[in-house]
Amino acid sequence: MTTYLAATGTALPNDPIGNDTMAEHFGTSAAWIEAFIGTRQRYLAVELATGRVTHTLADLGAQAGGQALARAGLEPHDVDFVVLSTATPDHLMPATVNLVAEALGIHEVPTYQLQSGCAGAVAALQVAAAIVESTGRTGLVIGADSCSKHLVARDFAALSAPELVNYVIFGDGAGAVVITPDEVRPCMVLRLVVNDFVGLGCPPGQVVNWFNVAGAGTGEQAVHEDYKAIERRVPPMAKDVLRLLLEGTGWSMADLAYLLPPQLSGRMTASIVKALGVDAAEEVSCVADTGNNANALPFVQLDLLAQRIRPGQRALGIAIESSKWIRTGFAVEGV
Amino acid sequence: MTTYLAATGTALPNDPIGNDTMAEHFGTSAAWIEAFIGTRQRYLAVELATGRVTHTLADLGAQAGGQALARAGLEPHDVDFVVLSTATPDHLMPATVNLVAEALGIHEVPTYQLQSGCAGAVAALQVAAAIVESTGRTGLVIGADSCSKHLVARDFAALSAPELVNYVIFGDGAGAVVITPDEVRPCMVLRLVVNDFVGLGCPPGQVVNWFNVAGAGTGEQAVHEDYKAIERRVPPMAKDVLRLLLEGTGWSMADLAYLLPPQLSGRMTASIVKALGVDAAEEVSCVADTGNNANALPFVQLDLLAQRIRPGQRALGIAIESSKWIRTGFAVEGV
Repeated sequence: MTTYLAATGTALPNDPIGNDTMAEHFGTSAAWIEAFIGTRQRYLAVELATGRVTHTLADLGAQAGGQALARAGLEPHDVDFVVLSTATPDHLMPATVNLVAEALGIHEVPTYQLQSGCAGAVAALQVAAAIVESTGRTGLVIGADSCSKHLVARDFAALSAPELVNYVIFGDGAGAVVITPDEVRPCMVLRLVVNDFVGLGCPPGQVVNWFNVAGAGTGEQAVHEDYKAIERRVPPMAKDVLRLLLEGTGWSMADLAYLLPPQLSGRMTASIVKALGVDAAEEVSCVADTGNNANALPFVQLDLLAQRIRPGQRALGIAIESSKWIRTGFAVEGV
Repeated sequence: MTTYLAATGTALPNDPIGNDTMAEHFGTSAAWIEAFIGTRQRYLAVELATGRVTHTLADLGAQAGGQALARAGLEPHDVDFVVLSTATPDHLMPATVNLVAEALGIHEVPTYQLQSGCAGAVAALQVAAAIVESTGRTGLVIGADSCSKHLVARDFAALSAPELVNYVIFGDGAGAVVITPDEVRPCMVLRLVVNDFVGLGCPPGQVVNWFNVAGAGTGEQAVHEDYKAIERRVPPMAKDVLRLLLEGTGWSMADLAYLLPPQLSGRMTASIVKALGVDAAEEVSCVADTGNNANALPFVQLDLLAQRIRPGQRALGIAIESSKWIRTGFAVEGV
């Protein structure tokens, strides 16, 4: 059975926040953010000044999912299953995917929520493709993250540079795609998904903790990153995925019209693209303008790709998760 | 393709804790726990007196998963994918499933972690079955929960009865099953899975919050339950699942050798079994002796079933999640 991606959707909350505003809020310089992160702006689901939450994760997921359904010409009752991936659910229970289903009026179907970093978006595509292949049904796949939940007020002046990076690198948002065996109005064919846990014996590159009601009482930090390990390991992992996708599809580098590279930050993405050396393909990136909104990223890239890809054109997407080191990617072809 | 369940495993941490010990610790009476909960004992991954964590969720998942693999005669490299479901991951990132994979020496395969209450165990079986059907591969499916993360020290004397219920109803644990298309040493055939979100327009019956580093500063409670709604809605939802499973398999009530009913508490399970009226089938329950360990429960029941079921015997399992109302179940047959 052929698995199609029928339509995409994106949700980015509020107005974009530029580096000048971030620099002022966090007591650093816009030039430092530009140089070390390479991200020009991001979208946040909170008011930066007050911390007031303006959008829940369910709000973002429903907005992106609703857009994808509308563009696919589908009604809620046409959706046979929903898969949502996120690292930052609204609650532990109920799963946010069910609040999204409620907001969209989707009912009496299976819903699944994958807990993951940005590789989760590709894992969600893979799970959805397995369901399409085994049942012949149509699903809505959503990636969403609200990283600003962790941006709690602190003494920013006391933060070290690696800690401050966490406050300026991330963004909030959601993306969605309709996946279906139905040949009516498809946009792309999903040819292959690669998804491997490859972190055996390696310390995590990223740890994000949640707390019970006793919260910060433990003195533990919420977010830890080993940016040195990330800078060292992500480019070769991305190259491995590129190789696996080319081997799996039988495509050559010269066949590629588009490349959707990993979206860690504007600067990291630029360096990975250089390392990959897929010079003939047009890059489809968003992170410098959206911030790193994790599970949303590959779907936002797919949304940009959907506006450009023509029948027969081939594209590869790559997403790397540094938490416990997961390499993922997908191959699509315009129809 | 036929999907087999090849072997099961269970992990229950530390010695069981009886109602006398719980009553003493929480300042209530063992008779009250017995009467209102109907659960005799539970296993906790913490030392009750000190709150010291003795087992992470990854520890429990790896123990149950390792037992299932050993019983199936499989090595880590025989595992083509891992699915873990939980409501209480060790971290938001990395996903606990990857720490389980590491502990078991499983590498370079896809891993998936579903965020869900006890319906997640059945959703995990369903996702795994779709992967088996679409790829012909062998997977390890794990359900695990560490509810004691939320049992933080408070002034127990000030708690109302519904709040106190949360402290005595839950337990910690993990269960696992090997799922495979391989006919070597199978234990059961998986005939059908039912899994539907049915909560459109209904307030959640259970909400469990997580907190960022600012934690309890918000004054929000971690765990909320609407026990009245749960008591009212779960029995008819369980009857719906029974009907859907019988319709889907073409089996009649008289065909059933075993029934694995929902495991909310000893008392609730007894009342649901009565409402279901499957009198000819032998009940396979664990909650009165394990506590409600959520995603572990259906796998612990499958583990008990695996020790009894004979070739040709038929069994149905039912799990209801009250968070945002999810009805799930599965049909298996001994081989």
